Amino acid sequence: MKFSLAQIAHLVNGTVTGNPDVEVNTFAKIEEAMEGSLSFLANPKYENYIYNTQASAVLVSKEFTPKSKIKSNLIAVEDPYVAISTLMQMYQKNNSDIKSSIEDTAKIDKTAQIGKDVYIGSFSYLSEKVVVGHNTQIMPQVFIGKNAKIGHDCIIMPGVKIYSDTVIGDYCTVHSGAVIGSDGFGFAPKADGSYENIPQLGNVIIADYVNIGSNTTIDRATMGSTKIAKGVKIDNLVQVGHNVEIGENTVIAAQTGISGSTKIGKNCVVAGQVGFAGHITIADGTKIGGQSAVTKSIRNPNGSFAGRPLLPVKEYLKMLVNLKNLG
Amino acid sequence: MKFSLAQIAHLVNGTVTGNPDVEVNTFAKIEEAMEGSLSFLANPKYENYIYNTQASAVLVSKEFTPKSKIKSNLIAVEDPYVAISTLMQMYQKNNSDIKSSIEDTAKIDKTAQIGKDVYIGSFSYLSEKVVVGHNTQIMPQVFIGKNAKIGHDCIIMPGVKIYSDTVIGDYCTVHSGAVIGSDGFGFAPKADGSYENIPQLGNVIIADYVNIGSNTTIDRATMGSTKIAKGVKIDNLVQVGHNVEIGENTVIAAQTGISGSTKIGKNCVVAGQVGFAGHITIADGTKIGGQSAVTKSIRNPNGSFAGRPLLPVKEYLKMLVNLKNLG
Amino acid sequence: MKFSLAQIAHLVNGTVTGNPDVEVNTFAKIEEAMEGSLSFLANPKYENYIYNTQASAVLVSKEFTPKSKIKSNLIAVEDPYVAISTLMQMYQKNNSDIKSSIEDTAKIDKTAQIGKDVYIGSFSYLSEKVVVGHNTQIMPQVFIGKNAKIGHDCIIMPGVKIYSDTVIGDYCTVHSGAVIGSDGFGFAPKADGSYENIPQLGNVIIADYVNIGSNTTIDRATMGSTKIAKGVKIDNLVQVGHNVEIGENTVIAAQTGISGSTKIGKNCVVAGQVGFAGHITIADGTKIGGQSAVTKSIRNPNGSFAGRPLLPVKEYLKMLVNLKNLG
Repeated sequence: MKFSLAQIAHLVNGTVTGNPDVEVNTFAKIEEAMEGSLSFLANPKYENYIYNTQASAVLVSKEFTPKSKIKSNLIAVEDPYVAISTLMQMYQKNNSDIKSSIEDTAKIDKTAQIGKDVYIGSFSYLSEKVVVGHNTQIMPQVFIGKNAKIGHDCIIMPGVKIYSDTVIGDYCTVHSGAVIGSDGFGFAPKADGSYENIPQLGNVIIADYVNIGSNTTIDRATMGSTKIAKGVKIDNLVQVGHNVEIGENTVIAAQTGISGSTKIGKNCVVAGQVGFAGHITIADGTKIGGQSAVTKSIRNPNGSFAGRPLLPVKEYLKMLVNLKNLG
Repeated sequence: MKFSLAQIAHLVNGTVTGNPDVEVNTFAKIEEAMEGSLSFLANPKYENYIYNTQASAVLVSKEFTPKSKIKSNLIAVEDPYVAISTLMQMYQKNNSDIKSSIEDTAKIDKTAQIGKDVYIGSFSYLSEKVVVGHNTQIMPQVFIGKNAKIGHDCIIMPGVKIYSDTVIGDYCTVHSGAVIGSDGFGFAPKADGSYENIPQLGNVIIADYVNIGSNTTIDRATMGSTKIAKGVKIDNLVQVGHNVEIGENTVIAAQTGISGSTKIGKNCVVAGQVGFAGHITIADGTKIGGQSAVTKSIRNPNGSFAGRPLLPVKEYLKMLVNLKNLG
Repeated sequence: MKFSLAQIAHLVNGTVTGNPDVEVNTFAKIEEAMEGSLSFLANPKYENYIYNTQASAVLVSKEFTPKSKIKSNLIAVEDPYVAISTLMQMYQKNNSDIKSSIEDTAKIDKTAQIGKDVYIGSFSYLSEKVVVGHNTQIMPQVFIGKNAKIGHDCIIMPGVKIYSDTVIGDYCTVHSGAVIGSDGFGFAPKADGSYENIPQLGNVIIADYVNIGSNTTIDRATMGSTKIAKGVKIDNLVQVGHNVEIGENTVIAAQTGISGSTKIGKNCVVAGQVGFAGHITIADGTKIGGQSAVTKSIRNPNGSFAGRPLLPVKEYLKMLVNLKNLG
């Protein structure tokens, strides 16, 4: 598919500087773009690339003033990142081939309730009383345990494992290898030094518009529910312990681990490889830097912290300088 | 199922304060409990909740003396945590539906030996000469490589991958996505800067009563065996390198990594996101705090350590205070 | 299979001290070796074991001079590690049972192109227009998305998930549970605090002779490609973000995470649990110690760094000493 710059400008409410009849057929990063591609400049760090890019057109901010001559055509928009993302979504929608069939090598218990226009891929296994909402795509090799409910318009990628009693809302995406609802890590020490398994009788409840990354693990509650609120985005290889609660629109980067019964507020941003101790509460809007150790509750909202010990970012940066002086 | 408080008190050798005829039908955490549920108070941190809980009954310690009036009925027991855990196990046993059939879409090599009352789910693949003991549940989509042996009364959850020659004992549970017996990470550098793969000819041996978490990886030995002793409990997303040995009843929390040939003693407790260097030995009863770096052997048993550099806990806490002062 | 020491010496260009007619039939580590086994001494740390080993023969360096009497026969070679590894490879080749068949419970789209002597195991799913090169082994329960290309002589272990458009070169091994090509973690914040999914339209390109460990995740590019160069070795549970590039013959140990758009050079060695920030560039030949935080670009090649803050190794070691003094 080809689009003229005039057409694109129309879609994103932008203004063309250059030739509006030029056509593009793909997207590219500004430093890699070739002729025929549409690129964008959002992060000022990448500004130098615009003066040499081979892109046929670049989406730029209305505020952008070139420091020297640019060969590319420009399309000025309110927010270039939002604009490229909107265009990519349109492209993706046009190119996706939503399936709505049940492949004959899927195994579906006769008590399962499957909505309209659902796709269920080969070698997927749906247990007793599973419920799947309309338009949901269950890709091949997925396991769904008994009584689990998946909402509508979800995408469950190949090989996802969903244990019994899990509840997943609408418009969720779960990537391959994620395990949802496995047993919480709970063992009662016995007198002889060995441990007794504590039954994990709760479940996992995931609200709408949640994304879960590849090979992430979310444990079921010992009793009650592990809860992931609306709009939460979880990256790959993240560990979410039993009875954890994560508030709306919180974002958690790869390889972070959250110990049992910890509650993270709304609109938080957690970087990669962070560790949270158990039984603590993190206020709304908290930002945590990569590899930090969060061992105590954070009561005041909207703070930014990093390090081990965890410090307000300003103090953390000072600590780093002082640590360097110890080297 | 409903039980009266009198019945419950009988099961856990407790004493009812309140109405012994009241009935409960579920378990709940004290801060979330509704009418009809049985709760417990084990951690003093949660004591305030008991004065307002909606639970129909709460298991408390015989030593517990309320500071003010409690609406709930109480059942006084020796150890409330052990009592609730015992009751939950009884509940789980009564509610589980152990299957003992071989689903027709499982693929089982004709040389495999399958014990009595085994369940093998759809899309599971059992290779040549696999042995599975009686009462073991192999859930759907499991792979078991040739010559692997699984003991009796095990639960292998959906999608577990067990490489050839692995040995798993009795009463073990392996959660979804765990990979047992994959190649150790061994490469010999060549003169041109590239690496030659070193064949990994050993295996993994797991003893009885071991639990392995979701998406945990345990590498086979280069030669000899990677060994997980009786009663070991391993959480999710843990990496166990080639030729590692883990002693009896050691507990390892999520996202910890253990490099090749390291030996961890018995009855150790390792928190989450800890890293162990290779070729070191850790004494029995050692406790390691979260995110620590264990780079040297620990010779004396029963010590508690944390941090990077790793320090005895008392010194570690002092270091943390001093680090804060650098911020 | 049994081999005489004379035969072995011939295979690895070595010299026997002792009885060349003695036969061995297995490999063993020097500290565990029993009669009938061939062992090796490469790391001087293990030298004491040679004076008591039960191995029938030990591969040693030509430079090795015993400090006391050794019961074992010795085979002196240029490099004992290379020698044992060569012998193990020969052994592995003789013992492997390469399959070249397509099991009837595999699901293969009619538009897929399958090379000569390919094995495709049960419950594997090959989507539209997948290409698989000759001699490649696709083990059971693998998913390959549409348009993905796998080269020749690859081994794709059970349960690997390869998303659409992924390209994998020749002679690659991918271990169980690895997920290649899942969506990059990209979300555009909206005015109401929620996030919009940014479509991930790029792919993953993996060159020849690459090894990828169990449960490792490699995200597709937002646009363009995430690139893993020739000879790269990646351990288990590693996270590789969208648009990352990893140079030739770089080795990355378990549980390391690399954030989006970071470029790591050739011949680097990265230890376990390291975190890389996004959008940085690491020079060729860089070595990074375990659990380090790499937050800035490294411009000069062949440096060795560790810690948080990241310091040259010499300064890092000094910092560790000073930190201990704070404890």
